[in-house]
This record gives sequence, structure tokens and C-alpha cells, in this order.
Amino acid sequence: MDEEPVMDVAHLGHLELLTPKPEESLRFFVDVMGMTESGRKGDSVYLRAWDDYEQFSLQLTAARTAALGHAAFRARSSQALQRRVDAIEGSGAGIGWIDGGFGHGPAYRFHDPDGHVMELYYETSWYQAPKELRPALKNQAQRYPARGVSVRRLDHFNCLAVDVKANREFFQKYLGFRLTEQIVLDSGEEAGMWLTATNKSYAFAYTREAHGVKGRFHHITYAVDSREDILRAADIFLEAGVKIETGPHKHAVQQTFFLYVFEPGGHRVEVANAGARLVLAPDWRPIRWSEAERKKGQAWGLKTIESFHTHGTPPLPGQHPFDNEVAGEHDLLEKGMAS
Amino acid sequence: MDEEPVMDVAHLGHLELLTPKPEESLRFFVDVMGMTESGRKGDSVYLRAWDDYEQFSLQLTAARTAALGHAAFRARSSQALQRRVDAIEGSGAGIGWIDGGFGHGPAYRFHDPDGHVMELYYETSWYQAPKELRPALKNQAQRYPARGVSVRRLDHFNCLAVDVKANREFFQKYLGFRLTEQIVLDSGEEAGMWLTATNKSYAFAYTREAHGVKGRFHHITYAVDSREDILRAADIFLEAGVKIETGPHKHAVQQTFFLYVFEPGGHRVEVANAGARLVLAPDWRPIRWSEAERKKGQAWGLKTIESFHTHGTPPLPGQHPFDNEVAGEHDLLEKGMAS
Amino acid sequence: MDEEPVMDVAHLGHLELLTPKPEESLRFFVDVMGMTESGRKGDSVYLRAWDDYEQFSLQLTAARTAALGHAAFRARSSQALQRRVDAIEGSGAGIGWIDGGFGHGPAYRFHDPDGHVMELYYETSWYQAPKELRPALKNQAQRYPARGVSVRRLDHFNCLAVDVKANREFFQKYLGFRLTEQIVLDSGEEAGMWLTATNKSYAFAYTREAHGVKGRFHHITYAVDSREDILRAADIFLEAGVKIETGPHKHAVQQTFFLYVFEPGGHRVEVANAGARLVLAPDWRPIRWSEAERKKGQAWGLKTIESFHTHGTPPLPGQHPFDNEVAGEHDLLEKGMAS
Amino acid sequence: MDEEPVMDVAHLGHLELLTPKPEESLRFFVDVMGMTESGRKGDSVYLRAWDDYEQFSLQLTAARTAALGHAAFRARSSQALQRRVDAIEGSGAGIGWIDGGFGHGPAYRFHDPDGHVMELYYETSWYQAPKELRPALKNQAQRYPARGVSVRRLDHFNCLAVDVKANREFFQKYLGFRLTEQIVLDSGEEAGMWLTATNKSYAFAYTREAHGVKGRFHHITYAVDSREDILRAADIFLEAGVKIETGPHKHAVQQTFFLYVFEPGGHRVEVANAGARLVLAPDWRPIRWSEAERKKGQAWGLKTIESFHTHGTPPLPGQHPFDNEVAGEHDLLEKGMAS
Repeated sequence: MDEEPVMDVAHLGHLELLTPKPEESLRFFVDVMGMTESGRKGDSVYLRAWDDYEQFSLQLTAARTAALGHAAFRARSSQALQRRVDAIEGSGAGIGWIDGGFGHGPAYRFHDPDGHVMELYYETSWYQAPKELRPALKNQAQRYPARGVSVRRLDHFNCLAVDVKANREFFQKYLGFRLTEQIVLDSGEEAGMWLTATNKSYAFAYTREAHGVKGRFHHITYAVDSREDILRAADIFLEAGVKIETGPHKHAVQQTFFLYVFEPGGHRVEVANAGARLVLAPDWRPIRWSEAERKKGQAWGLKTIESFHTHGTPPLPGQHPFDNEVAGEHDLLEKGMAS
Repeated sequence: MDEEPVMDVAHLGHLELLTPKPEESLRFFVDVMGMTESGRKGDSVYLRAWDDYEQFSLQLTAARTAALGHAAFRARSSQALQRRVDAIEGSGAGIGWIDGGFGHGPAYRFHDPDGHVMELYYETSWYQAPKELRPALKNQAQRYPARGVSVRRLDHFNCLAVDVKANREFFQKYLGFRLTEQIVLDSGEEAGMWLTATNKSYAFAYTREAHGVKGRFHHITYAVDSREDILRAADIFLEAGVKIETGPHKHAVQQTFFLYVFEPGGHRVEVANAGARLVLAPDWRPIRWSEAERKKGQAWGLKTIESFHTHGTPPLPGQHPFDNEVAGEHDLLEKGMAS
Repeated sequence: MDEEPVMDVAHLGHLELLTPKPEESLRFFVDVMGMTESGRKGDSVYLRAWDDYEQFSLQLTAARTAALGHAAFRARSSQALQRRVDAIEGSGAGIGWIDGGFGHGPAYRFHDPDGHVMELYYETSWYQAPKELRPALKNQAQRYPARGVSVRRLDHFNCLAVDVKANREFFQKYLGFRLTEQIVLDSGEEAGMWLTATNKSYAFAYTREAHGVKGRFHHITYAVDSREDILRAADIFLEAGVKIETGPHKHAVQQTFFLYVFEPGGHRVEVANAGARLVLAPDWRPIRWSEAERKKGQAWGLKTIESFHTHGTPPLPGQHPFDNEVAGEHDLLEKGMAS
Repeated sequence: MDEEPVMDVAHLGHLELLTPKPEESLRFFVDVMGMTESGRKGDSVYLRAWDDYEQFSLQLTAARTAALGHAAFRARSSQALQRRVDAIEGSGAGIGWIDGGFGHGPAYRFHDPDGHVMELYYETSWYQAPKELRPALKNQAQRYPARGVSVRRLDHFNCLAVDVKANREFFQKYLGFRLTEQIVLDSGEEAGMWLTATNKSYAFAYTREAHGVKGRFHHITYAVDSREDILRAADIFLEAGVKIETGPHKHAVQQTFFLYVFEPGGHRVEVANAGARLVLAPDWRPIRWSEAERKKGQAWGLKTIESFHTHGTPPLPGQHPFDNEVAGEHDLLEKGMAS
């Protein structure tokens, strides 16, 4: 008989992003993305999308350089949390418990094989909207803002990793994540992997770090309801002078309808369509993409933009999101338009 | 040989709406509809949608009761304007010239057979967006606001008339409007007519006044790009506590995808899909709907709501938009939801 | 410490619908809904939506009257299946094992408290598209048909029950389903419940049977990607002469964007937007709707249509879907239109 | 006083495309684009979109090579037709009258300065749908097909011209077309122009022929209702193995949301969003794009694909649509996907 799947992780909870431009980053997420500030503590501002049920899904922390602070997952129960902590401690990747602080209870911290800081918690604080943000329908966490992109909820994140395979095996073995899709090069090296703990087809992805630098972050993604919402987002980013890296277009992998931009702090931010795609099969058979298949570009033929393979946070020496071609042009474009 | 069509009227220019709650009405059009204030003069505030090329498309004027101040059409040329003025003066419906004032040049005023005040002008003032509202693309009048419904442009209006046929004939004979659709009862009485001067299938409609009162107004309509924008508008109205009368649904007549709400001053406001429907045939054959056909409700079977046949502005004694069933329920709904 | 959630049921697998008009029902699901026939056996035809990963999600079986044959759920593992079977047998609701036959392995049958036949299985057969139906992207089960509504996957079903509470407790206690929303009348009687085993907010709903008849079926629902797809479906149903009962509109409960029609056999069929709404919280707090709240109609104010509370399959004596007001009108409408 | 605008041309009527693969081209327009065959005559098949009010908008004619047969415009009246014919004859560009034949009355043929054959007619034949194609709503020409892309109506076409300015002046002076947007290089040379006779912002465009060859065709465009319809079209083309050249994306010029593919005969075909954009101003001020502005790519930053500047029909020696990069890759992509 097959081994039974471990179901201890419930879902991705939140990300902490370090930004060298805290004020500009905050304005981007609130005014352009349409998110809501739900609290402040120390150097951090806590932000939420209107459909997030917890207090926050994004912690913006002032820092010298743009980087991932940590990524946090919520466990399915207190027992499930303890089981995973025991497993991780056995792996030697453990860091230890922290109090939790704003928005959730005690959390256990650990490193993935690439050095990113991860967090696991169960006790959380449900968001209670103040009167002016109370929704008309009681089965909704917060009023729809109708401001800017108005993103719905945190969808997933993407890290870079020097050894994709090692990270995949770590999250599968010690946390029970399930592999839905992956990229395997002709050499046998894994260039990308998409893992999930829910019926969403992925909670996060790791793609190959081509520069040998550990711990870098690729992008954070917020979900909207439809592809039309993403086209609308492209118009909003254009009007707001936000640098569009690539998209809107459809990924072949996972079929995500995507749009990538850079927030003022330098992080890549994606707006994607949560759509109707669900992985319901408990024994899903992972899709393996070959090197030849990936060379073909995106679903409708768009070439993958070069900066997608190089830019991450922290940026490498001499690398800057605004150096990328599209963004540079975009500057000129605006000047041209204004002339 | 057929008579050649008169092409002297270019398009609907703007409406003046009188409102007993000027401040609340202004907040509705700016905060919820996403329009922009472009000027003030006397008791009037001038508003525009982001794609209107002239200074304004809506003049809100403080008054004792809600009513149509006037509706204005732009002529195709100064010569065309003079031709129409000559024709109207010959009809005996003329009122005379006014200076024009904010946003456009000299205008000729006249009454339609039901007593509504109409205006015709040619000289106008093109909108020049201030820096903070300048669009990224130079072929657009103003930056997309991404606030509330963010309506695109004035689409059409609807008046009530005791004698629909007399009004239809007046606008066809003296202004050169073309009939695209109409409702004719078994008795032969005309219950509704839709006229156009452009490739849009209508610039305005007149429907039967069932209470024998002349000069009443039925609704003003702003256009958005897609049906999805209208569903989004319904969510925004719901969250803002705006009274939804009926919709979203699809009209059988003109196939307009509609949503009707009441603004604080009491006027019925429609958000509709400008869509892709165009009347290109110069010799379009008017669609005639019979009494039996209209009894069938809307395109997908929705019954026409009763208040649609009774409510207009000014409201009749004892009539108030918020008395209507949907709105009343809606109040309770929100209370219920909040409990 | 809280009890840990049971995660043994993976998802809703398929429904068997009995139809007195097998040929017409088949044409409806293939030509209008855009589904694909994947097999036949005995009096049954097996149908699938393009994103269903198993062989089929709908079994149409010729019969004297329209009714639910059975509803089937897939277990998460063979061990999970055995645990649920043990629990159900303990409840006294068990019927026993069947071979399974087309598309899946051995299945255990049982009755819910209202007498509907349910099925639980684990072993299944994955769909392999023939060459002409092979998708361009390998992470998709079948080519997008672009025919009719082109529904994506089975979404949920709705049964009527004389005792809603008893059924809710049964599915929660013996199968581990989780309650997300419910309707509780002032009398304390439960009038509706929505249960899930996934991150979808419900796999099925049970609403109150007002006529004291057990075992009746309310509707089957297929999902599409966007609300626009549902508006498009309404146009397609209108053109195909399919009876539209109500919608498109947005439910307050679960916020489902809905459209209900009747298939030729008499079953109510819903096309709904799977949308981006997910229930991620492992400890979701059920939403309880009061009698007063439900009296308010749907999200945007539409009154709940009367037939929604009375029509089910099998229909009651003298009851017929085509007797309902909307459908009747719709007939006239078409006649009117054609004249 | 300004000169009055000439309003003699009503709208673009149809295009004749020559194709070396008549059967494959027909299958593309009927099965993938969702058009309807309305007649055959000689080597031609006549096709229509569901919202075209005339018999056809596309005449496919078997020929040795892919090329534009002719483009035809409908005049506003018989008098308007005679006025334009008189003007064109005065210009020396006239060819003469033809009987018209299928779908319309006598037509006058002439050459534009680049040698493309154009046609002007007034008398036409309105489409009467056979019973099985009769729409549910009588204000619609034909039933919505719900097959493939299901394009709504002919939108515009694009020719290449060695001397763009000469062609612009010809259509403005002799036919009364109005310029809405244009591209003017630093050298003063005109590289593109968009003209209209309706409230649509263009009926056709001419862009610079970089190879000195006269009479080439760039693309034909059919309109759908929304941007979502175009994303859906991209999925349909992908599934059907149709070569996608570029898009979906948004043009800066005219803000058209576009998707370009190649039909089997070699012609570039665009599906675009008719959207809500209308040019209502009778004295519209043409938008002039500079060389620097156009170097910036499309609205959201997509680079203009190289083949867009080189490929036209007939193709130049050694040039073939399937040679273009995207299409080539796409082939590999499909092989890769299938492997």
C-alpha cells in the first residue's frame, strides 16, 4: 500500500520583504496594488489584501537592501505543527521558536537548503474589519477597496536556489509539500519546481540561481479574480509609472496568466489570475518540462525576458531592476509620451 | 432617389442634472463612479469621465428638486449648427441663444414636445489634463483613475414623454436623428424610441410617461468597456451602500448590458457596456418591438422591475427612489449583514 | 488540544443523473455545455469537462424519470477509503461494495439520511486524450473544445433534504466534511448547509425540502473560469432555446456567480464561476445566515425565484420545470421574437 | 468658416483576399474564427461574421499567391456614391464600374496611389438568416455561433505603401476619410496613418513598405467584444496549431488590444477588441507619434516583433510567414509538448 500523504501544512501565510525604500514600497502596495495597512511594529508595516482572512500577508521591513526576510506557512493544527517541528529539527535545519508577535502566535523558524528563512505557525489572529472597511457580505473578510489593482489575496512566492533538487526534497520530506510541475534539464539538473500543500497548483516555486549566490528572492505574487483584472492592472501600472518587466501573457508552466513589475524597493511583484485551475487529485502526477520544451517560451509564444533569469533580490553587484530593457524603454516611453 | 440623410448633429455632449443633495450627489459621481471635477460655476459643479474629450459631460446643479436641467448636443460644424437652428426656429420650439459659459461656446436652446430643455452648440473647449492627471498614452484624454467604477464616457440618456411619437418625429425632422429601435403597442401607440446621430445605436431614448406629467427624466448612462466592468460596478455599489434598482442583466432592446442604481439626489443612473455593437448601415432598418414581445422581460428572462415604469425625476408626489422594493430590502440586507 | 481534522475525502468525483430523455440530455451536455463523451456502458453515457482529470464527471443513465442516480467522492488514499467505510458501516447507513466498472475501481455505496445514494472510491482511471483531443499544453487533461459553453470541470451539486441538520451531521461525523456556510431559521431549523473536503468553499449543498418528499435532487454545477464566461453562457443558452430559470447574478451565500437552466430531462443545471475564492483556513469559522438575511434576496438585490424553492428532480406531481414562469415566458419570447 | 467635412463614405464593407490554399483558408475562417459561409461564386467563397448586416465581409478567392484582391467601402447614399466617383475620376485613379455580383450592387473600382484595388458601392443586400441561424433577439443579424473565436464583425484592414503620405492625402481628398493618428519620422517621412469614416477610430491603416514593392497587404482584422475574448482566442489558436505572430498585447497607437496570427494561405489575421473607444469629435485632432515614441514598443512595453515590419502578402522572395521566429518556435513547442 502507498504511503499516506502528510497533510500538516495548511497554506502559505505571509512573506516578510526587506526594502531599502520603505515609504515608496508602502505607497506602491497601498495606492497601486490596493492593499490595506493593518498594523505597524518596529521597522515593519503589515499589509493585507481584501480577501486574506488573517491580519496580514505581507510584512514590509525597512532595511539596507531588498531581500526576503522570511516566508511563513500555517500548520493545519497544533499537533500538525509539532509533528513538522520535530521532523525539521531532525533534519538539522531548525533555528528555533520565536514569539510570533503581530498577527500570529509562536512560530518555529528554520532554513531551507538555500538559506532562506522559513517559518511555521498555527495560532493566528483573524482579521476583524473596522466599521469603514466592513464588507456588505458577511462571508468576506474586508470591503473590496476599488482602489488601484485591488489584489484579492497572497497567491505564491518564488525563490532562487543554487540546488533546486535539494530544496524540493527538503520541502517534500520534512513538510509534506507535493510536487505538481518541474523543469529538468538534459543534464538531469532540476531548473525549477512548483510545490503545493493545498488544491492550488502551487504555494511557491524555486528556480535555478544562475550566479551561485544563495538566499536570493525572485518574486511575490498576489491573486486577482480574472485575466481581465490583470489587463486592467497593466493599464494601472502604466498610468502609475510602475516598471513593467514582462506580460501580461500566459505561462506554459502552470498556465498562470502573469504580469511582472518592479516595486520601488527593487522586488519583482507579480499579479496573477488565481483562476479556476485546481489540483484535486490526491495522487497528482507531476508534469516534467524538458529543456527543449522550455526553450519555446511562454504559452502563446512570448520569449522569456532575459532579466527573468538574472534579476533577484538582493540584486547582484551592478544589477538593478531599472536597468532591464523594458523598464528603461518604459522611462523613455513616458518622456516621449509627455513631450 | 432617396432623400440624403442629415448629418448635422455630431454627438451627445453633456447633461445638466438638478439635485437637491448637491454634496452627496457630487461624492457619488466622484468617489463611487470615479469621475473627475473639472470646474465650478455658480451653483454648478462640472464633472467628466476619463475618456470625455470635452471639459465635462455632466453639470450638477443645486436645486430644490431632482430634475433634468438640460441635455446638449454638439453640431458637426458651425454651418451645421446654423442649419439646425434655422430648422428648429421654423418649428416654433426655439428658446434662443445663450452664451454657453463653462466648457463650450454659444448654444441654442429649445424645447422638445414634452417640454425638456435641449441645447445645441458647436464651439467647445478640449480638456487638457493637469500634470497629475496626464495619461501615459497621448491618445487618451485623461489618466485612468482606477477609483470606484471608473466610468469611461457619457453614453446616453433617457427621458419620459407623454407623447413618444411626437418627440421621435421632432428629433428626426428638425435635428436629423435616426431611429434604430422602437416599441409600438397593439393600440398603435409608441411606448419607446431610440435615436442616434452616430454609429452608436442610440444617443438617447424616450419612453412613455404613464402619469401624464410632462418633462420628467428617466436616467443618465455612463459607459465602461466590458460586461465584467459592470459586474465589478455592482460589487462596488453594494459595498458603497448605493441603492441598486435592477441588473446587471441584458436588455432585449438594443442588447445593452445594464445596471441601474439611484444617486443620492434621486436620479436613476445606469452603467452600461459600450461594447462592440455599432450601427454602420446608413440606411438602418428600425427594429419594432411589439407589446407581446416586450411583456417577455429582458434578454435572459428577468422581469422588468415595476419602479422602472413609474420612477422618474422629479419624482411624483409620494414617490421616492428609496421607497422602491429593492432599495428597501437592500437597507435591511445591509443591517442584516452587519448583525 | 482541538481534535485534528479528518482529511480522508479528496474531492467530489462524479454524479449519475437519470434522465427520461437520454438523447436530448446528451445533446444538451455535448453541444450546448461543450462536454465530451468518454464512454458508454449499458444504459449510461459517460461525459467529461475538458479539465476533469478522471475519465468522467457525469454519468447520464436512461430512466423513466429524472433523478439523482448517485454522487461519488474520491478518497485521499486506500487507507483513507477503508477508514471511511468502517465509519459508515458503524453508522448503519452502509449499502456495500460495488465493482466500480467504467472509469474507477471498487466503490462503497451508502445512503445519506435523506436516502440519496452516495459512493466512495479511491482507485480511478486517469483520462488519456486521443490525438484529436490532445491539448497543446501537457499540463492540461484535454484540448479546450471552444464549442458552446465549454465548461471546465464538475464543481458541486445540491440535494434537497427533509432534515438538513441530520444530513450535515452525517457528512461531518462519518466522512469528515467541513461546514463553511449555513442558513438557520428563527425556529432553529437548518434550511441550508454547504460542506467541503477541499479548499473550494463547497463540494455540495443541501437545502430544505419543503414538500416532505425524500431523496430529491436540486442541481448539478459545472465551473467556468470567469464571470464573463457565464454571461457568454447565458447568450448561448438563449440562442439554443434552453430554458433559463434565473441569473446570471451573484449569490449572497458563498458569493457564487450563478446561472441556472433546465436540461431537456428536467434537471436543473448551473454554470458557476469557480473564481478565485478559496477557503484556506483549516479552522474556518462557518458563516451563519439568518432568516431575515436570506429574505433579502441575492447579493445585488435579485429576488430568489419561486421555482428555486419548489422544483427538484424527480418533479412532484403536476410540477414541471417548463411550467415555471421564466421558462414559460421564454417560450413566448422566442415566438414573439421570431414573428 | 471651416470647410464642412465630407460624409459620403458610410463604412468599410468587405475585403477580397486571394489565397493559394483556398480549402485550408476556408477551414481556418469557418472552424477557428467561427465565421459563416454565405455563398459561393466562381473561385470565390463569401464569408460573414455573426454581426455583419450585409451578406458578407470576406471574399476568399483561389489564386496562385496570397494577396489583397480588393477592399470595398459602402457609400452613405446613391448621391454620395456618385459624388465620390466623380471626384475619383477627376483624380485619374479610376478604373471603372463593375456589376457587383454577389451581395451588392454596381461598384466603382479605382486604385490607391500604391496600386491596391479599391471599390465603392451603395446598393447592398441585407443578410437574412436561415431558420437554423436565426438569432433569439431580432435586433441581431445572425445567431451567435459559439464555435471557435466567434468573431463579431469586420473591423479594419492594413495595407503597406511605399508612399504613406500620398495614400493618406488621396483618401482624405477624394473620399473624405479623416485622419485620427499617424507616425511621422524625424526625417518628416510618414511611416503610418490611420483613417476613419465612422466613429470607430479607424477603418484602415497604411504603414510603410520597407522593400519598395507596391500593392502589398499587411493584415485583416475582425472584432470581438472584449479583451477576454481575445485571450480566449489565443488559447483557441494555440489548441488549433495556428501560428501566433505576436500578442495578445495593447498597441500604444489607437490602444487596440491585439492578437496576430497567420492563416494557412499566408495572410496575417488580427483579432482585436472593438472596445468602447469611439472618436466622437467631428474636429478630432490627429495624434502624431514621433520616431522616438514608436521605438518604445507597445503600450505595456512589448517589443514590436521584427516580422511585423517585413512580412506582407504577397510575401517577398524567400519570405514565408512560417519562417518567422515565433511560428517556428511554436512548431517546436507543439512537438515538445506532444513528446
